[in-house]
Amino acid sequence: MIRLSAVPKSIFTCLLAAVLTTFFTDTQAQSARNRQPSEHDFMYQYSIIDALMAGVFDGDLTIGQLKKKGDFGVGTFNRVDGELLIDKGHVYKIAWDGSVKEVPDSDSTSAAFVKYFKADTVIHLNGPGLTYEKVQEQITHLLNPNGIYALRISATFPTMTTRAEKPAGKPYTSLPEHLKHNQVVFELKNTTGICAGFLLPPYLARTNVPGFHLHYLADDHKSGGHIFNFTADAVTIEVDKAKGFTIENNTHADFGKVNLQPDRGAELKKIE
Amino acid sequence: MIRLSAVPKSIFTCLLAAVLTTFFTDTQAQSARNRQPSEHDFMYQYSIIDALMAGVFDGDLTIGQLKKKGDFGVGTFNRVDGELLIDKGHVYKIAWDGSVKEVPDSDSTSAAFVKYFKADTVIHLNGPGLTYEKVQEQITHLLNPNGIYALRISATFPTMTTRAEKPAGKPYTSLPEHLKHNQVVFELKNTTGICAGFLLPPYLARTNVPGFHLHYLADDHKSGGHIFNFTADAVTIEVDKAKGFTIENNTHADFGKVNLQPDRGAELKKIE
Repeated sequence: MIRLSAVPKSIFTCLLAAVLTTFFTDTQAQSARNRQPSEHDFMYQYSIIDALMAGVFDGDLTIGQLKKKGDFGVGTFNRVDGELLIDKGHVYKIAWDGSVKEVPDSDSTSAAFVKYFKADTVIHLNGPGLTYEKVQEQITHLLNPNGIYALRISATFPTMTTRAEKPAGKPYTSLPEHLKHNQVVFELKNTTGICAGFLLPPYLARTNVPGFHLHYLADDHKSGGHIFNFTADAVTIEVDKAKGFTIENNTHADFGKVNLQPDRGAELKKIE
Repeated sequence: MIRLSAVPKSIFTCLLAAVLTTFFTDTQAQSARNRQPSEHDFMYQYSIIDALMAGVFDGDLTIGQLKKKGDFGVGTFNRVDGELLIDKGHVYKIAWDGSVKEVPDSDSTSAAFVKYFKADTVIHLNGPGLTYEKVQEQITHLLNPNGIYALRISATFPTMTTRAEKPAGKPYTSLPEHLKHNQVVFELKNTTGICAGFLLPPYLARTNVPGFHLHYLADDHKSGGHIFNFTADAVTIEVDKAKGFTIENNTHADFGKVNLQPDRGAELKKIE
């Protein structure tokens, strides 16, 4: 939370602008929502984060099927072969070598979190000196802590730190153990693009990632990954509040065998 | 978990019968499922257990709307005015005075967990000396710990202990605090009826009740409630495995104001 006295004038002005934009876009969004099926306003996810954490790295949902559940979101692929990002209905893989490719419908995912994205709030924040942490503080300040939000952040980023991972071979280990040896970190400079992902409430622990979870895709499709940190001078944040949440269980045999009793929240925080 | 050497012969015979019935009914159920929309095989819930625990006792979902989400399940009403049970599309209220009434569509719920019920497994267990605890052990032994199951248990019960609660007045307290002073326990004898509810995996902590959560309705509609204990000589357990789970957030203003950060799992166990 921020104290107003500690807020630089430029950010304070932006917050006022943000609130005004909210009222304006709420009406527009309402009209858009009236034309779309009600289930489009629910977030959808295949499998749960705790299964992925525990090493359930394969799933039966194809990318083609995933696209029918939402046009925006994040996830990974079978064998945790890179970071998944969906924007405007296109599914991208950011691989461990830093390359970005659009993914064929025949590929499969072991965990993905998606939504049909329609912004109902737009927040503009100006720097100087914006960081991922400060952007999170501002968003947290403006949104309800119990809400389920899809976030699409567009900006030019002087610095952007991301990761992707090499695919796992069998027998699979846990995700933290796999990342320890197979995570590649990218230090991107002066990159323009979008951050796609979610801000989720504490009650979705175990099933998903409470708090912020965003992946990055450069506009030129030459870089991206799971976001650790960034700096920016100005960001535009599109916010889409979901009415709820659908979880479809992973039907792969490994899901039925894994021990989902332990609370893996502390482990999860270390790798996010 | 049970050791075979410790299993009375009558129960062991029943377990074999249960497995055979499973294969038989799986085929029947598959055929039934092919005729129903896919979303009918997902559990649906309005609001989350942690909000109810924290004192969010009002919701905006009418019983008429709830009936469109499932024909079977459990829950409560606004002001926690009694226990809710749905069976075959009929919604019943078991009130604190022990009475049972079918509920008009215009009533509202602050928390309800429902599904369109189609059994895909039927388990028969014979006693003597079956208890709620022993039935739970048998079911746990036969089903996958990571699955989401709706359960419908029918039997004659020599004893059945249930509860219902008086409605709350404002300002609301937490659910455990409310129950401390307003819970009425019923000691029913030689009652025939059905137990309706769910067996849920550990990852649905915070959003729902992990483990078993069943409500009772006597066939003569003269008694029921949230089940604490029972004894039975023979039970028939219909099991409907769900593909997943949909949570619709409570839209009442109180939901946005409540602190959902604390883990209320230990408190919940005390009142279940």
